[in-house]
Amino acid sequence: MDNLIDILSNAKSIAVIGASNKVGRPGYTIMKNLIDGKFEGVIYPINPREEEILGIKAFRNLRDIPSNSIDICIIAIAAHKVPSILKECCEKHAKLAIIISAGFSEVGNRDLEKEILSIAKDCGIRILGPNTAGLMYIPSKLFASIETTPLSGDIAFIAQSGALASIFIEILRQRNLGLSLYLGLGNRIDIDEVDALELALRDSATKSIAMYLEGFKRGREFLKLALEAIEFKPITLLLGGRSRAGSRAIQSHTASLALDTAMVIDILKQYGICVVDTLEDLANVSYAIPRLEPVNGKKVCILTNSGGPSVLATDYIEMMDLEVPELSDSIRNELRKFLPSIAILNNPIDMTAEADYERVYNSLKTLASCRDCDYIVFIYIPTASSPWRDVIDALSDISKEHRNVIAYVGGEDSERMVLELEKRDIPVVTTLKSIATTIRCSYIRAKNIKKVQQYRSLF
Amino acid sequence: MDNLIDILSNAKSIAVIGASNKVGRPGYTIMKNLIDGKFEGVIYPINPREEEILGIKAFRNLRDIPSNSIDICIIAIAAHKVPSILKECCEKHAKLAIIISAGFSEVGNRDLEKEILSIAKDCGIRILGPNTAGLMYIPSKLFASIETTPLSGDIAFIAQSGALASIFIEILRQRNLGLSLYLGLGNRIDIDEVDALELALRDSATKSIAMYLEGFKRGREFLKLALEAIEFKPITLLLGGRSRAGSRAIQSHTASLALDTAMVIDILKQYGICVVDTLEDLANVSYAIPRLEPVNGKKVCILTNSGGPSVLATDYIEMMDLEVPELSDSIRNELRKFLPSIAILNNPIDMTAEADYERVYNSLKTLASCRDCDYIVFIYIPTASSPWRDVIDALSDISKEHRNVIAYVGGEDSERMVLELEKRDIPVVTTLKSIATTIRCSYIRAKNIKKVQQYRSLF
Repeated sequence: MDNLIDILSNAKSIAVIGASNKVGRPGYTIMKNLIDGKFEGVIYPINPREEEILGIKAFRNLRDIPSNSIDICIIAIAAHKVPSILKECCEKHAKLAIIISAGFSEVGNRDLEKEILSIAKDCGIRILGPNTAGLMYIPSKLFASIETTPLSGDIAFIAQSGALASIFIEILRQRNLGLSLYLGLGNRIDIDEVDALELALRDSATKSIAMYLEGFKRGREFLKLALEAIEFKPITLLLGGRSRAGSRAIQSHTASLALDTAMVIDILKQYGICVVDTLEDLANVSYAIPRLEPVNGKKVCILTNSGGPSVLATDYIEMMDLEVPELSDSIRNELRKFLPSIAILNNPIDMTAEADYERVYNSLKTLASCRDCDYIVFIYIPTASSPWRDVIDALSDISKEHRNVIAYVGGEDSERMVLELEKRDIPVVTTLKSIATTIRCSYIRAKNIKKVQQYRSLF
Repeated sequence: MDNLIDILSNAKSIAVIGASNKVGRPGYTIMKNLIDGKFEGVIYPINPREEEILGIKAFRNLRDIPSNSIDICIIAIAAHKVPSILKECCEKHAKLAIIISAGFSEVGNRDLEKEILSIAKDCGIRILGPNTAGLMYIPSKLFASIETTPLSGDIAFIAQSGALASIFIEILRQRNLGLSLYLGLGNRIDIDEVDALELALRDSATKSIAMYLEGFKRGREFLKLALEAIEFKPITLLLGGRSRAGSRAIQSHTASLALDTAMVIDILKQYGICVVDTLEDLANVSYAIPRLEPVNGKKVCILTNSGGPSVLATDYIEMMDLEVPELSDSIRNELRKFLPSIAILNNPIDMTAEADYERVYNSLKTLASCRDCDYIVFIYIPTASSPWRDVIDALSDISKEHRNVIAYVGGEDSERMVLELEKRDIPVVTTLKSIATTIRCSYIRAKNIKKVQQYRSLF
């Protein structure tokens, strides 16, 4: 059986079973996404009653297709028809079937699901789903999904929910960020979170892995892969079904078993996986983490031009068991050289409103390279007097040498500033609380990288 | 001494001491905000070296102004010059001095602050600040602040931080929402959170009160006013300085004393005040709460067209000690009448992707008026097949009769949908977690309203 990465990288032909001209039907959306995405191989729409689908010649069934091989079959028809269609996919030597159709174990139809799995095993075809929103593999321009199309980016999103993908993609799009791949797991009868993680690990466009899971099918293998990923592709994870009623809800969503959440989260953290609480954090952390050097230390210094936001950031940081320590005299003396006399040299360090290139650059340089600060938080709220482009230049110049600085900007020009920071690949988050979540995750990751490296050196 | 509301409602003349033509100076920003805000009274810029400020005739000093009364003086000059200027404001019978200048108790200059207070007491002038970002009172078109100008709306924002006001205003602006008033408390030597709260209570444009505080000056009076507000103007509060290092940081920000946070939060909740954790929640809750009927019950029903988001919402709701109960057979049978056979009638209730006007309206109506559900959450993620305008019509029609329904929308069209929901005054929040925070606050408020009403009936 081929690896998922090989299948997706080499796909030359796709059949869409249930392709439709009717706006709103899954088979319409998939065809539209494949075409708009400019997939470079051949697309075969299958529809017994249409000559053409969205301008592409349609076939009555798979057997009518002249070629005797089709790489990927996307199935979007009624559940009870899936087994026979899957057999036809096998006859065409398909390597992967993406089963969009719902109506399987999530509504109690376990036998139908078993039947599909047995067909797939017999012919060696991989199955994504059923009850999946599909997949998008951006390096191959393969938008085989009913979900919104993301911008191209470097985050892989693996999720047991298409609707959350849609929200996540929109959160990223507002920041001009995108995905390298999306994989909707659905009921996971074959391809599961481990296969998906492996795909993300092997995919060179992916820098960061964001996941939404409602359960684990192969926990041990998942953790093993997470250790492989730890140095190169940070994993950020949001868990659904953590509450009693939530775990009841996932039964009818993806038929997953409930987790013993506290224990599971504890184990995941021990493998350097960042477990977050919200989709907003998932976006912030998965963007910022790969851009931040994982430093194994808890001391956080805050450099700012404003009071309130830095008070809140300090609260969040300390509540996550990190430290905002008072600064040593030597660092204070150093800072005093280029900060105005009214600047406050406690930590948070308030440069006051007038923060120009020199002040920001020199302050950041001093903090980033000193032993008082493991991580530096830069909080900047533009005021009427602020030359924010100069401030970004300073941040950008520091980030070329020091990767322990994370930025937050807020207020009137913040949207433009965030885009500019992202363009320069600077770790930036969009909520004050995400600052703390991101540093906490980076610190835990660093601790575990160190542990992994120590183990490795034993052999 | 006049009430703040009288001073602000009747202000006919304003002097800006330290008015400037230099872009970036506080005295420039204030002048610009006053002029752009179209203040209808007279503005007197005071500057010893300029003939005009932004096109308005300037005066060398207050005494040169022909009128012998000026209602409001805004002071934006060096701290040590403030006492003598304040005396001149007294001579002109000013009722309120807004002292933007910093450099008082927050940097240890306690004596200077005492001097100001004593002058103010002698002549009966009210003081806002010092070290304040100013105030904006939208009903009087009075933008006496160095902060970003908000859109006009019905939320009052009272804050010990101008930078947070700037972020908060921007969060609201992205949703086309605005403020009725903004009041920056600064060091609170005279006007404090109680005066501010009273102003918001008396102001007819204000429907909801959002606050950021770093401490309380008159806790008992604050709570007394909160009880007065409880039925008509819900209060949502974000506290800064909750951590050890955070409380150190507020010392140099607004010279506030540290709180015993857990105890304080517990007391605030007993008075029906909603204590939130983030600025995003502050925006969501303060918008949604006054539009939601406070129902004294914990049972939450979720109606949705999507799996993952409702799983997460269920988790958040249960984690906040509310319930997502299973539905009774009679409600299930009722819902079965208009929902498709593949719909999932557990709670969350998944209508599946095809949610049209009839299905949404009938389902909401059934849930909103039954005893199984105290609050209804409507989670909608538009898909390629969704007629989202019909869905909003259904929500809108239900909201005319039932005010226990709160909405969340996400994904591709969500920004437009949120704006449309707001236009129709429907309670909507923009993060899944805010759903739970809002309901929790509404429930606690309802419990306390009931308690207050019982006490009242005893007398």
